[in-house]
Amino acid sequence: MYPESLKNLIEAFKFLPGIGEKTAERLAFSVLNLEEEQTEFFSNSIINLKNKIHKCKICNALTENEECYICIDKLRDNNILCVVDESKNIFLFEKMGVFHGKYHVLNGLISPLDGINPEDVGIDKLIDRITKEKYKEIIFAFRPSIEGETTSLYIKKILEGMNIKFSRLASGVPMGADIEYLDSLTLERALADRKEIE
Amino acid sequence: MYPESLKNLIEAFKFLPGIGEKTAERLAFSVLNLEEEQTEFFSNSIINLKNKIHKCKICNALTENEECYICIDKLRDNNILCVVDESKNIFLFEKMGVFHGKYHVLNGLISPLDGINPEDVGIDKLIDRITKEKYKEIIFAFRPSIEGETTSLYIKKILEGMNIKFSRLASGVPMGADIEYLDSLTLERALADRKEIE
Repeated sequence: MYPESLKNLIEAFKFLPGIGEKTAERLAFSVLNLEEEQTEFFSNSIINLKNKIHKCKICNALTENEECYICIDKLRDNNILCVVDESKNIFLFEKMGVFHGKYHVLNGLISPLDGINPEDVGIDKLIDRITKEKYKEIIFAFRPSIEGETTSLYIKKILEGMNIKFSRLASGVPMGADIEYLDSLTLERALADRKEIE
Repeated sequence: MYPESLKNLIEAFKFLPGIGEKTAERLAFSVLNLEEEQTEFFSNSIINLKNKIHKCKICNALTENEECYICIDKLRDNNILCVVDESKNIFLFEKMGVFHGKYHVLNGLISPLDGINPEDVGIDKLIDRITKEKYKEIIFAFRPSIEGETTSLYIKKILEGMNIKFSRLASGVPMGADIEYLDSLTLERALADRKEIE
């Protein structure tokens, strides 16, 4: 029913997660209304992204260079390392602007049930780096989950005896959330991690 | 903060209506996870769309050829013409599969307050076509609005005395809608257009 080039773009939009038939149609039609320079820019951006972006050879973060801008920044705190399981989470931290340490990106979390083992997520590279760069504190910034805990404990165990402090993000009630709608696991964590009011 | 190529793609996604910063970021990141052939296909589809798609010289519908597949279809009913104000609405009708007449796409609706006059929406071409092709019925498939009514009445007036039946889509309660949440204008139309139960 649709002209082929329109059908193709609809299919292309459907590659993206969370985009179904209806949304893909709407987006493809809206591309028709773009200026010619805009479509060229859009098209080129897609190709450029894949060609130019790769992983920082030190921390695995997304970068266009060999090493990312955080790894080469001399002003960052070299005592503290924040370990994330997805590259894009670094940007969330950087947007806050309150963390000044370094980052390391794992390729996901250990999950033996799904056949994801320590070597799959790049634990060796992380251990090497921590051993070489002598961090005083490692923060595990994983989502609260069994996989997150498994991964944190696995790394902690290997590095035991190296005089490193390990921490995880606090679990608890999100700001502005209504306690009555909270799941009981979150509430349990919030209770266990309760903070003294000074 | 983002590498430039990522920033560019985020900006490109924001060209599309309804896509804000957050969604653009999510989509750009998800492009990173596509296979190489997928990104190539995606990128090419955008360029191809603009290069290949244009308006059917008879009805203004989107097509890759000089005339769209409906205009050249000998089996369509040549007595009835459905006039829409957006090309994509044709596909909505075609998806239903119950309308077998022809279509004509106006370039929007007449709206003197917004400075959109009959010549801007392509009324002349429509009038020419109706006069030449001798339709028995013209259906105005516009959204219920002052502009829709203005446009319908304007066309009807020009063609008066040509023994053509003019109709518009029924206005009323959408299927499955709750009457208590209906706006009063819709309810008023639904009452005025009420149908006898036979």
